[in-house]
Amino acid sequence: MKIIRNIVELRQELKQYRVKSNGECRVGLVPTMGYLHEGHASLMSRAHDLSDLVVLSIFVNPIQFGPGEDYETYPRNEEQDLALADRQGVDIVFIPTVEEMYPTQTLTKIRVSEVTQLLCGSSRPGHFDGVTTVVSKLIHIVQPDQAYFGLKDAQQVAVLQQMVHDLNMNVEIVPCPIVREEDGLALSSRNVYLSSEERKQALVLSRSLFEVNETMVNDESVKASEVRERLMSLIQLSPMAVIDYVEVLTFPTLNRINDDVLLNDVTEKLIMAVAVKFGNTRLIDNMLLTPKEAVFLV
Amino acid sequence: MKIIRNIVELRQELKQYRVKSNGECRVGLVPTMGYLHEGHASLMSRAHDLSDLVVLSIFVNPIQFGPGEDYETYPRNEEQDLALADRQGVDIVFIPTVEEMYPTQTLTKIRVSEVTQLLCGSSRPGHFDGVTTVVSKLIHIVQPDQAYFGLKDAQQVAVLQQMVHDLNMNVEIVPCPIVREEDGLALSSRNVYLSSEERKQALVLSRSLFEVNETMVNDESVKASEVRERLMSLIQLSPMAVIDYVEVLTFPTLNRINDDVLLNDVTEKLIMAVAVKFGNTRLIDNMLLTPKEAVFLV
Repeated sequence: MKIIRNIVELRQELKQYRVKSNGECRVGLVPTMGYLHEGHASLMSRAHDLSDLVVLSIFVNPIQFGPGEDYETYPRNEEQDLALADRQGVDIVFIPTVEEMYPTQTLTKIRVSEVTQLLCGSSRPGHFDGVTTVVSKLIHIVQPDQAYFGLKDAQQVAVLQQMVHDLNMNVEIVPCPIVREEDGLALSSRNVYLSSEERKQALVLSRSLFEVNETMVNDESVKASEVRERLMSLIQLSPMAVIDYVEVLTFPTLNRINDDVLLNDVTEKLIMAVAVKFGNTRLIDNMLLTPKEAVFLV
Repeated sequence: MKIIRNIVELRQELKQYRVKSNGECRVGLVPTMGYLHEGHASLMSRAHDLSDLVVLSIFVNPIQFGPGEDYETYPRNEEQDLALADRQGVDIVFIPTVEEMYPTQTLTKIRVSEVTQLLCGSSRPGHFDGVTTVVSKLIHIVQPDQAYFGLKDAQQVAVLQQMVHDLNMNVEIVPCPIVREEDGLALSSRNVYLSSEERKQALVLSRSLFEVNETMVNDESVKASEVRERLMSLIQLSPMAVIDYVEVLTFPTLNRINDDVLLNDVTEKLIMAVAVKFGNTRLIDNMLLTPKEAVFLV
């Protein structure tokens, strides 16, 4: 496994690799902010299935954090990250400094409208501009055939697919299923912030999503408003839960399903998405569903 | 010369070419809006010098025109364009339809701040977002090593260089000198709009730039305000001229030189830039200079 910290060296390495393989190798990029867990490991594993060379990037991207968010305190552990990447058979780890990625303040931003205007986009203004900008930088540096992202950040997947489509980027965004702890908690680097009581109460997220999926989504007469209300009331059973949003939307177009619409009448893929604070920690979770067949997509 | 109208076919053609040449060929892109003239021809000729395969794109990009601007009436002549491209030895002409470039309305825009906030950027709000967005699309489709742009649109060159730098695009923006008619008028597809009287009066632009360059720029005591004022008064000698802007700026950083600053004290490259309307036609012209040595850069 090669560890590369600068862009010129990474480009040279990739160029050599491409020439050696007569341009026949597929390069897979797994962009992360580090503090890697089994969710990230599953991305690397998927990348091994579909790509010939796996590049993992680790970069806590300052421009996707808002003022007062956790950029400074975001958990970092390079040694553990490298050990995990090595176990996963990653070929190249790219770990740039902030100065390497932003030698001068970026005057250029990529902005996706509409799909960024709700859910985490409205709670975290500017967040997705930071994400699309840094991902496009990584795509331009690595020029991958595939880039792998977890569906835990489902809106991020939707936004990046829109960007790649609109800008004709020659890369496939590969969404990968959410990985959960045995008790259902969706893996997240931010779970480390939770006290043991908060962590216990945070289980309400996955439990609510699973319960609604099992009890309501098969019901032909269920309305979007009923799903939202049921999710709300289940989540509110946890006294620490402070709800940011609870939504039912089309995916990946992210159009809100109006209250009176029967889920069964929607022909697009649907997503239930929630964001809830426990203490100072904001957690997100979601579940994709196809109401007509009531089959999980992930 | 191959004429290609769709993106998939263009990508396949370029891929074949790259495989055949073992990845050793340099691809040059000349993005244009067509109605080609000798200015464009000089870009193609420069592309032949520096690149192995020359791709010319012809696309009148709707999203860089504002409401009330001349998108509908922008001059088009595919037959003449193809004849000129063929004479210039272009390898591939890419002529997409609007539907091919924008199969759905683009939700994604690339926005460069600061360098887009003055000159044509302030006169034409949104214009440069349209330019950066379409150029990034073309760059993603063609994946060129070099992309060629005329310095007639000097701000466009500055904006695109900023974008390429900020987003780590793997392409060199190659600025090419302004091409002028024998009488000094900078070539532009929009010159066709001018009546014969307007065309005569439009000569005031190049004449003013040349005169100021010859008489003032060598003068060690000349201030930025004096250059602007002299340009203004020279241009106003033409009764039809309606000035949009007259500026002296650093290039390509596009910082305004304050009135009292001596040109001689500025260590950066400088540009004199003007935009003036004659009847309904807005013309731009500029001249790059290095005051310390009083040498044209173009």
